[in-house]
Amino acid sequence: MAYDLIILGSGPAGLTAAIYASRKKMSAVILTKQVGGECLMAPSIENFPGFLKISGADLISKIKEQVDKYGVPIKDGLTIGSIEKKNANFLVKTAEGENFEAKTVIVALGRMPKKLEVAGAKEFEGRGLSFCTICDAPVFAGKDVAVIGGGNVGLRSVEDLLSYAKNIYVLQHKPKFIGDELTIERLKKTGKVAFLTNAETREIIGKKFVESLVYEDLATGEKKELKVGGVFVNIGWIPNTAFLKGFLNLNEKEEIIIDPLTNETSVKGIFAAGDVSNILYKQCVLAAAEGAKAALSAHEYLLLLL
Amino acid sequence: MAYDLIILGSGPAGLTAAIYASRKKMSAVILTKQVGGECLMAPSIENFPGFLKISGADLISKIKEQVDKYGVPIKDGLTIGSIEKKNANFLVKTAEGENFEAKTVIVALGRMPKKLEVAGAKEFEGRGLSFCTICDAPVFAGKDVAVIGGGNVGLRSVEDLLSYAKNIYVLQHKPKFIGDELTIERLKKTGKVAFLTNAETREIIGKKFVESLVYEDLATGEKKELKVGGVFVNIGWIPNTAFLKGFLNLNEKEEIIIDPLTNETSVKGIFAAGDVSNILYKQCVLAAAEGAKAALSAHEYLLLLL
Repeated sequence: MAYDLIILGSGPAGLTAAIYASRKKMSAVILTKQVGGECLMAPSIENFPGFLKISGADLISKIKEQVDKYGVPIKDGLTIGSIEKKNANFLVKTAEGENFEAKTVIVALGRMPKKLEVAGAKEFEGRGLSFCTICDAPVFAGKDVAVIGGGNVGLRSVEDLLSYAKNIYVLQHKPKFIGDELTIERLKKTGKVAFLTNAETREIIGKKFVESLVYEDLATGEKKELKVGGVFVNIGWIPNTAFLKGFLNLNEKEEIIIDPLTNETSVKGIFAAGDVSNILYKQCVLAAAEGAKAALSAHEYLLLLL
Repeated sequence: MAYDLIILGSGPAGLTAAIYASRKKMSAVILTKQVGGECLMAPSIENFPGFLKISGADLISKIKEQVDKYGVPIKDGLTIGSIEKKNANFLVKTAEGENFEAKTVIVALGRMPKKLEVAGAKEFEGRGLSFCTICDAPVFAGKDVAVIGGGNVGLRSVEDLLSYAKNIYVLQHKPKFIGDELTIERLKKTGKVAFLTNAETREIIGKKFVESLVYEDLATGEKKELKVGGVFVNIGWIPNTAFLKGFLNLNEKEEIIIDPLTNETSVKGIFAAGDVSNILYKQCVLAAAEGAKAALSAHEYLLLLL
């Protein structure tokens, strides 16, 4: 059986696409690893319209309730393996060996944090080196920690650590921090945060657990060691598009290039929505709206097939 | 005093823009006639992510609560008269004679229903002829009524009338209805709705109140009269952009043309968001997201001024 629509991913974009698709009487299915996406990591969202304050998990569970009301099936525990044309339809194959066929596809798979490529980084992942401050900050109560990355994501990591860590070193490899000035000023006033520029991380050292971080001062060439019990990596994102390379057009950040009015990709019948696409701002409410738009455009596309 | 940002309009787009702007520490003010916008008219919204079912009025009041939390002032009772350049800033003049100055402006004024241009239409406005089914349907309990307009907005008007009106005539001047087939089928099954194609409304007749509607059957040229106690007009929209003509670029529908990635208009420093712009789908969640996007872009623009 071919669905009208396969939705890949179940963050705000995928779930809202399901709501809109089912209200248009499209038969749809969601394929996902785990319901939620990046929003799940936010402990407190205060800029989603309609909620003074809500956790990412609660917001997702409310949107999922709407999807459930409309009866859109969610198949979880799946990793997308490949997508290919099958006559007029698309065939999505999962790594687990399941096949799904549909007339249209919405890719709403979001993105993953970029890994640190230095000695010790892989070894200490989960043993003091973390990509999710929100998840792991409480483990580092009373310890000195390092945050790698001087953008707003790095600053947010610092904020999440403030009530737990003893001292926080923030490492920026450029000569200047690129995050919000106001936030940086505020963080400096706490007296707990040291901002290091020209600081390129070279090695993570420890025994069972992280014990220190070595960085090079790019201005002087000098190597310095920071005694820290934890390292939080915030150096960027990789969109979940590896399986799409060569199949549709990606930009230099490996984001799916969409027509921002219609969410069409370079392959007719395939749409993309949310953080996986080349929209400028990655925000929950934007992802949700992009999902709605992609579903409405998929519906328009189906009408043309009739 | 010049604000960082003036927001024109207070629907989901304007209010969400205010939330995002204040979180970026921009000084902002909202100028509006009445808080709410078109969303207010929706008795029950079931596709806004986060709410199984909510009235437009309740949704607006929840978003306004967030705006109030951030302390963005809302000046209501105002009609926008004009906008002009004043050195590097913009000067917004209201019809009431107040002036406001800011470095950036977000236009989020939405759109108004198009008026019917036939004999009697103006005369019976508010006396049996309505542009807001949701507002006025209960007044027509037990009466026969006509709905003008065969698109989805017309069909929604019919749905809103179903539990009140006795019989409903839907007039479409084209040879075919353009609204959802499924909805049309469902409405036909009620036995209360007659769908008339090639039906061009020519006159509204009555004494104190509407008593009948005369239309021409465009296929035969014959004029026919429907005895109805109410007429609901759903023939399209006019964006609230009259004061912007010649100042920035509008499309053929008089919508503000934006860069859909950044919400920039043809005038640097002026952004547009929501139903007033040329986005394809007019939905509350989209308007909210567009407001967020416009505010983030206005913030980027301010950073460039520094």
